[in-house]
Amino acid sequence: MISPDIQRQVISWRRDFHQHPELGFLEYRTAARVAAELTRLRGCTVKVGSEVMRPAMVLDSPAPDVHAQARREALANGADAYWVERFADGLTGVVAEWTFARPGPVVAFRFDLDALPIDEPSDAAHAPYREGFSAKYSGRMHACGHDAHTAMGLGLATALAQSSDDWCGTVRLIFQPAEEGCRGAKSMVAAGVVDDVDWLICSHLGVATKRLGQVACGTTGMLATSKFAARFSGRAAHAAVEPELGRNALLAASTAALQLHALPRHGAGESRVNAGQLISGTATNVIASHAVLRFEVRGETTDINRYMAEAAQRVVRSAAAMYDVSVEIEVLAEALGVRCDPEMIALVRQAAMATGGIDEIFDTLPDTGSDDATLLMDAVQARGGRATYLLVGTSMIAGHHRDQFDLDEASMSLGIDLFLNILRRTTHLVSG
Amino acid sequence: MISPDIQRQVISWRRDFHQHPELGFLEYRTAARVAAELTRLRGCTVKVGSEVMRPAMVLDSPAPDVHAQARREALANGADAYWVERFADGLTGVVAEWTFARPGPVVAFRFDLDALPIDEPSDAAHAPYREGFSAKYSGRMHACGHDAHTAMGLGLATALAQSSDDWCGTVRLIFQPAEEGCRGAKSMVAAGVVDDVDWLICSHLGVATKRLGQVACGTTGMLATSKFAARFSGRAAHAAVEPELGRNALLAASTAALQLHALPRHGAGESRVNAGQLISGTATNVIASHAVLRFEVRGETTDINRYMAEAAQRVVRSAAAMYDVSVEIEVLAEALGVRCDPEMIALVRQAAMATGGIDEIFDTLPDTGSDDATLLMDAVQARGGRATYLLVGTSMIAGHHRDQFDLDEASMSLGIDLFLNILRRTTHLVSG
Amino acid sequence: MISPDIQRQVISWRRDFHQHPELGFLEYRTAARVAAELTRLRGCTVKVGSEVMRPAMVLDSPAPDVHAQARREALANGADAYWVERFADGLTGVVAEWTFARPGPVVAFRFDLDALPIDEPSDAAHAPYREGFSAKYSGRMHACGHDAHTAMGLGLATALAQSSDDWCGTVRLIFQPAEEGCRGAKSMVAAGVVDDVDWLICSHLGVATKRLGQVACGTTGMLATSKFAARFSGRAAHAAVEPELGRNALLAASTAALQLHALPRHGAGESRVNAGQLISGTATNVIASHAVLRFEVRGETTDINRYMAEAAQRVVRSAAAMYDVSVEIEVLAEALGVRCDPEMIALVRQAAMATGGIDEIFDTLPDTGSDDATLLMDAVQARGGRATYLLVGTSMIAGHHRDQFDLDEASMSLGIDLFLNILRRTTHLVSG
Amino acid sequence: MISPDIQRQVISWRRDFHQHPELGFLEYRTAARVAAELTRLRGCTVKVGSEVMRPAMVLDSPAPDVHAQARREALANGADAYWVERFADGLTGVVAEWTFARPGPVVAFRFDLDALPIDEPSDAAHAPYREGFSAKYSGRMHACGHDAHTAMGLGLATALAQSSDDWCGTVRLIFQPAEEGCRGAKSMVAAGVVDDVDWLICSHLGVATKRLGQVACGTTGMLATSKFAARFSGRAAHAAVEPELGRNALLAASTAALQLHALPRHGAGESRVNAGQLISGTATNVIASHAVLRFEVRGETTDINRYMAEAAQRVVRSAAAMYDVSVEIEVLAEALGVRCDPEMIALVRQAAMATGGIDEIFDTLPDTGSDDATLLMDAVQARGGRATYLLVGTSMIAGHHRDQFDLDEASMSLGIDLFLNILRRTTHLVSG
Repeated sequence: MISPDIQRQVISWRRDFHQHPELGFLEYRTAARVAAELTRLRGCTVKVGSEVMRPAMVLDSPAPDVHAQARREALANGADAYWVERFADGLTGVVAEWTFARPGPVVAFRFDLDALPIDEPSDAAHAPYREGFSAKYSGRMHACGHDAHTAMGLGLATALAQSSDDWCGTVRLIFQPAEEGCRGAKSMVAAGVVDDVDWLICSHLGVATKRLGQVACGTTGMLATSKFAARFSGRAAHAAVEPELGRNALLAASTAALQLHALPRHGAGESRVNAGQLISGTATNVIASHAVLRFEVRGETTDINRYMAEAAQRVVRSAAAMYDVSVEIEVLAEALGVRCDPEMIALVRQAAMATGGIDEIFDTLPDTGSDDATLLMDAVQARGGRATYLLVGTSMIAGHHRDQFDLDEASMSLGIDLFLNILRRTTHLVSG
Repeated sequence: MISPDIQRQVISWRRDFHQHPELGFLEYRTAARVAAELTRLRGCTVKVGSEVMRPAMVLDSPAPDVHAQARREALANGADAYWVERFADGLTGVVAEWTFARPGPVVAFRFDLDALPIDEPSDAAHAPYREGFSAKYSGRMHACGHDAHTAMGLGLATALAQSSDDWCGTVRLIFQPAEEGCRGAKSMVAAGVVDDVDWLICSHLGVATKRLGQVACGTTGMLATSKFAARFSGRAAHAAVEPELGRNALLAASTAALQLHALPRHGAGESRVNAGQLISGTATNVIASHAVLRFEVRGETTDINRYMAEAAQRVVRSAAAMYDVSVEIEVLAEALGVRCDPEMIALVRQAAMATGGIDEIFDTLPDTGSDDATLLMDAVQARGGRATYLLVGTSMIAGHHRDQFDLDEASMSLGIDLFLNILRRTTHLVSG
Repeated sequence: MISPDIQRQVISWRRDFHQHPELGFLEYRTAARVAAELTRLRGCTVKVGSEVMRPAMVLDSPAPDVHAQARREALANGADAYWVERFADGLTGVVAEWTFARPGPVVAFRFDLDALPIDEPSDAAHAPYREGFSAKYSGRMHACGHDAHTAMGLGLATALAQSSDDWCGTVRLIFQPAEEGCRGAKSMVAAGVVDDVDWLICSHLGVATKRLGQVACGTTGMLATSKFAARFSGRAAHAAVEPELGRNALLAASTAALQLHALPRHGAGESRVNAGQLISGTATNVIASHAVLRFEVRGETTDINRYMAEAAQRVVRSAAAMYDVSVEIEVLAEALGVRCDPEMIALVRQAAMATGGIDEIFDTLPDTGSDDATLLMDAVQARGGRATYLLVGTSMIAGHHRDQFDLDEASMSLGIDLFLNILRRTTHLVSG
Repeated sequence: MISPDIQRQVISWRRDFHQHPELGFLEYRTAARVAAELTRLRGCTVKVGSEVMRPAMVLDSPAPDVHAQARREALANGADAYWVERFADGLTGVVAEWTFARPGPVVAFRFDLDALPIDEPSDAAHAPYREGFSAKYSGRMHACGHDAHTAMGLGLATALAQSSDDWCGTVRLIFQPAEEGCRGAKSMVAAGVVDDVDWLICSHLGVATKRLGQVACGTTGMLATSKFAARFSGRAAHAAVEPELGRNALLAASTAALQLHALPRHGAGESRVNAGQLISGTATNVIASHAVLRFEVRGETTDINRYMAEAAQRVVRSAAAMYDVSVEIEVLAEALGVRCDPEMIALVRQAAMATGGIDEIFDTLPDTGSDDATLLMDAVQARGGRATYLLVGTSMIAGHHRDQFDLDEASMSLGIDLFLNILRRTTHLVSG
C-alpha cells in the first residue's frame, strides 16, 4: 500500500490538474508539471516531445495560433518555460523510464493527460466547485478523469522511485496527450514507445466499474473507430449566369454524407457511421467551391472498422468524382477494437486479489466507447507482448463526459496499489 | 405539278404502308416495297442494307428473335423475299440515285420509314379506320406520318424517272429506318450516304405548319439529344447474412438516376435530362447484382447537349464506382440541334412561291422535338454543303404521336411539287 | 419409438412431397394429401382453408391466374378435387386436432408445407435424382426440408392416432403454407389457431444441428423481419416538352431506396435493411409514372425490427411526398425475433435425453435466418403459454436453399420420437 | 439640361457615398444624408422608416448587433443623429414627394442605396483610389453604381425643386435600401409607396449599355428569383451509443440540397436552382441536431420562378419529414421577371431622342441579373399603371460586382436630363 504521503500528493496533483484542464495536444502546463515531477525522482529517465511522438503521425492537432495561445496561458499559469519549449508544436507526450539492476521484462503503463471542452458547473452540489478546485478556465473540464489518471501515474512513479531495489527489468510510464478523439496514441506508437514492451497495462477509472472496490481485469466491446475530415475543392461560379462552370463542392459533400450513411453494413458484427459536420458555401447565388465534411466509422472489431473505413473513403472519393471536384481526406483519429490477453487478465486477477480494498473482481466488463490505447495494445500484441485495458472502480455522481462528473479520490490510491501488485507479478513471472 | 396518276399512286402507297406499320429497324415489308418500286424506275440505282448503313454504328436495334419474327411477318404480308434477305439484321435503309447526263450538284432528300408502338383506334371518327386502311397489326400505328413521307419519296422518284431529261447532276433519295428514337441516321452517315451532298432537303408534314398551303422553309429549336442505357453489374449477396459481400447495383443505379437529375445546367440555353427506366433486382433479401438505367439528355444546341451527355456519363460512372460495381454505357440514340442554312431557306422560299397551292410561307418555324435527320444535315454542313429541314402544312385531327393522328393526303402531292421546284432551283443555281 | 411401418410411410410421404414441390400458398396438392391422410386417422378433426386462415391477413399471395394454374397442375398430378376446392384462393393451411378423454393441456406442433423456386439438379451425386424422386416440376425444389417436416407431421399424427389412449388434453398439428418469405403464419394466428395453446413446439431439421443425433432444445438469434412492397403512382409527362407536368415515380423510388439504406441504426443490436428490387418506367423520354420498390428490414429483436420498419415506412412516404406522388405500402412478410422459454427448453432437454439416438443436446444454438413460426410463438407467449423452436440434427450435403441440399431421412423418425417424448412430458407436467 | 452647379453637386454626392459604402438595411449614413438634402428642397415632403417600409415584410435584415455597430459607425462618420434614429432597426428607405399645383399623373422614380461586401482596390489604376474617394471602410465597396444612382436621385430632386412651376401632378422619388440580394423592395411595396403610381421609372447605369450615349428604354430577360434559408432542427445523440435517438438535421439538409438540384424543370423556359450554403453539426461522434441551408431558385418568368419556389419548399419539407426533423423556411429575397410596358418604352424613346448626348437608343436590351425593382413594377402594373426598367450607358473598366468596377460620372447628368424629359412627356400625355 502506498504511503499516506504519496496518497496526499496524488490528491494534490489531481486537484492541480483539475484546476488547469487543457485540451488534446495543448497540455503544455500538465505535461510540464508531469515532466518536472518525474525529473526529480531517483533513477527516472524522462523523454518528451519528438523523442516520444513522431510529428508526421500526429492526428488533427489544433492550428498554430491555438497552440501559441495555449503556451502563453500555460506559462501565465506557472508552467516551467524549459519544458513548455520542449513540447513545441504540441508534442506534449512524456515517457518516464526506470531500468533496474536486475534483468526482467519491459512493463509499461499508459496514462492520458487531456481534458474536455465542457463548462464545469459552479454549483455547490459539485464537489470540485464546493471544495475550491474546479477549472480556472471556462469551457474546459476534466470530465473524464484524466486528471486522476495523470496523478496516478505520478504516484506510481513516486512509489517506484522510493522502492527501486524491489524491481527488475524496465518499467515505463507513458503519459499520452489527446486521448479524447483518439488522436494522441498513433504518433507515440510510431515513435516506438512500446516497441519492446512485454506487458502493457492501460486503465480507466469508473466506466463499467461503478463503485470503489470493483475491478475489471479487462474490457470487451470497445468499438474500433476511424474519424476523417474530407476537404472538397471545386470551383465557384454564378449559379444563374454560368452554372456549367461551377464544380459544386456542397453537393459533393452532401452526396458523400448521405451515401456514407447508406454504406452496406458488415454481417459479422455491429458497425456505425456518422457524418457529424458539414460546412460549405457562402451565398445562395454562388456555386459553393469548398466544403468540409467530418465523419467517423466504427466497428465491433478492428476488421469491421477497417471495412467501413475503406468503404467510406471510396464513397467520399466517388462523390467528389461525380461532381468533378477534388478531395483530400485527412485521418482525424484512430482506435482499434479491444482485445485483452487472457494471460494478462489472469495476472491482473491475481494482483487484484492481493490488493486491499478490492472486493469484487470481473474478468472483463463491456465498454461501448473507443480509446486509442488500443493502438498501443495492438502494437504490443503484434510483437508477441501482452496487454490489457483494466477498469478501477469508483463511485460517480454522473457519467463520463457530463459536466456533473466527479469521482472518488480514494480510487486513485487503490489503483496505484493494484498497479504495483501487477508489477510484482509480471516481474515474478519472468524472473521468479 | 405531278400527274393525277402519280397522285393516286402516292395515296395508294401511303395507305398500304399505313396498313402495315413497322417499328424501327424492323421495316422489312416497307423497305422491300420501296426497293421493289424503285427498281422498276428508269435510270434508278438502288442500294440497300450494308451498302447504305454501317452495321457497327446501328443504335439500339431490337434483339435477334424480334427481327426474326418481324421478317416472318413481313413475308406473310407479301414482302418480296429477295429484298427481305438483303435487309438482314435490320439494315432496312434504302437509297435510290439518278446520275443525269448533264453535270450538276448532288441533291439529296431524306424520308423516314418507321411507325410507332401505338394502338390505332377502331373508331368511325378516325378516317383510316372508316376508310378501311387502318393498321392490320395491333400495337403499332403510323401516328407520325412516316407512311406519307415514304409515299412522297416514291412519288418524287416516279416523277423524276418520268422526266429524266429535265435534270442534271445527281439526285439521291434516302429512305431511313428508325427515325423514332433517333437511331437510324447514325449508321447511314457512317456509311457515307451524304458524303458528297451539296444540297440536303429533310422534311416533315405538319408539326408547326398546321394547314394545307402553309410551308416553313426551315426549322429552329429542335433539341439535340443523346439517349443511353447504363448496365450496372455488381455482386449478389444475402442481405441479412453477408451484406458486406454484396456490390449493390440497385443503389448504384438509383444514385445515378437521382444525380443525373441534379446535373448543373448550362447557362447558355435550355437543357433536359430524364432517367426514364430503371429495372433492378429480384428479391427483398438479396442485394441486387444487376440494374439497367435508361436515360436521355437534351440541349438547345449541340454543344449544350454534349455538355449534358458528358456530365451524365461522368455521373453514371461515379455512381458505379461509389458502389464498387462495373457499368457499361450504351448509346441508344443521337440527334443534334437543327441549323438550317440561310441560302437553303431562301432557295426553298423561291421554290415555294412557285408552287401552286402554297399560300403562306415562313422562313422558319420552331419545332420542340428531336430528329436524327440533324446528323445527316450536320455531316453535309461539315463538308460545306447546305441543308434545311422544311415543313409542309397539313391539317391534323390530333398532334403527332397521338392515336387520333391523321393528315390531309393532299399535302403529299403538294410536297412533291415543292420538292421538284426545289430541285429545279438547286440545278439552276449551279448549271444555269 | 415409432413403428417400422410408420417409418416407411414417413419416407414415402416425404418422397412424394419432394417430387411435387409447390410454392407458398400454392401447396394445393401437398395440402390436399395432408388433409386426406389426416381424415383417415382415428379421432382426428381436420380443419382447412378459411377455418384456419383469415383471408384478409394473407400476405403477398400470388395473382389469381397463378393460383388457377397451380390448381390445374395439382389436379393433373393426382390431388383430390374435394380438398383442392376447399383451399380456394390459396388458403392452403391444414390443422389436425385430437381432444382426448382425459383433461390436459393444449399442445401444438407446427410444420411447414412449401418449396423454393430453385431448379433441382439432374446429377447422380444428388440422392433424390439418383433414387428417382427428384422434383417433377422444373424451377421448384424442396431445398429447405419442408417435405420432410410435412411428412414428420403426418407420421406424428399416425402415431398419435394409433395410441390415443395414452394421451390427455388436446394435441394440435398445424400445417402452415408459405413459410418461405415469412408469409403464411400471420393469417393462421389471426384465425386463432394458437389462441388456447399452452405448449407450442416449432422445429426445423438441420440448420445449426448438422449431424444425426444432435438436438438443440431452442434457438437464438433469429432476426425479426418485415418485408414490404411500395407502389408509387405519379404522372407521366414528356420529359423534354412538359417536364413540369410529370410526377416522377422513378425518382421517388430511387430516393426511397437510397434513403432506406441510410436509416440510422439502433444502438441496442444489429439491424439490416435492403431495397432488393426496383422496377420503374418505360422509355427514356417519358417521366416514369409508376414504380415498385420491394424492400425488407430486420432486427436482432422484435423491437429493433419494429423501429426499422417504422422508420422505413416514414422514409418511403416522405420520398413520395418529395416527388408529389402517391404510394401504397403493402406488407409482404413478417417474422419476429425468437424467444424460447426456459421451461420449454428444460422440458425438451428431458425429452431428448429420453430419446434413443440423440447423443448431443444443446440448450440453444444460434440461427441467423428468419421464420414466421415466431408469430405463432409470440401469440402463445403473449397469452402465458410456452414455446420453443427446436432443431433436429441431420447431415446435409449442402446448406439450406442450395440446390444440392439433401438430408438424412433417418432424422425424421428420430424427430417424431422426440416429439412424442415431449408430448409425454407436457401431459405429465399438468396431469401427473 | 441640368445646371453645372447641380452637375458638380451630383459628382460630389456620388463621391461622398462612394467613400462611405453601407450594406443593405445598414445605409444609415447614406439615407440620413439623402433625407437631410431632400428636406432642404422647396416643396419636398420627406417620409422615412416605417412610413415607407412595413417592418414585418423586411427580408433577411442583419442581426441587431450588426445594426447597432452600423449606427455607431454612421454617427462617427458624420450622420445626423436625428435621421439615424428615424431609421431605427434598418428601415433605411426614404421617399421624397412633390405635389404640384396643376393636376397630373403620379410619376415615380426608384433609386437604390446599398453597397457590396467587396474590398476596393488600393491601386492607382483604379480611379476612385487615384482621385482620393475610395471606400473608407475595408470590405465594402460601391461596385454596382448605387452611389451614382443615389446621387442622380438627389440631382433630379434638386432640379425639380428649382423648376417646380413647370410640373403638374405628383412626382415621387423612392430611395430603396438593400437592392443587393433583392430584399428591400418588398417592404416598400407593402407600405404602399407605389399604390397610386401611374408611371414608374426604374433604371440602372451600365449593364448592357456599355458606353456613354447609349440608352435602352426597357430591359428583358431579368430572372425572377426567390431565395430562402431553411433551418432544420432535429435531436443530437451519440452516434455510436444511441444513434436511434438522433434526428439527423445534417442528413435532412444534405438530402434537401441534393434533391433541390434534381427538381424537374419547367418546359416553358429557363430555370435555375442553387443550394449555396450548408452549415451543420459539431463533432464526428454526435448526430447533428441543427442545419441551415441557404438556397435560391430563378425562373425566366415570374410563373416559372413560382413553380420552382413551390417545388423547392415541398422538397425541403419532405426532406425534413424523412428525417423526422422540423424545418422553418425563411424567405430571404424576392424578385420577379421583368416586363416593361410598350407604352413606357415608346415614351422613353421619345424622351431619349430629345436628350442631348444620347446617340444610340434600343427599345430593350437583355439583362441576365435579378432586381427587386420588379416588385415595384409589378405592383404598379397590377393596378393598371405603366413601368419600365431603363438602362443609361456608361463606359466601365470592369463589370458590375467586380472590384475594378468604375463608371463615367458624365452618365449621371445625362441620366438626370433623360429623367426630366421623361417627366415632361408623362405630364404632357395626361395634361397636354
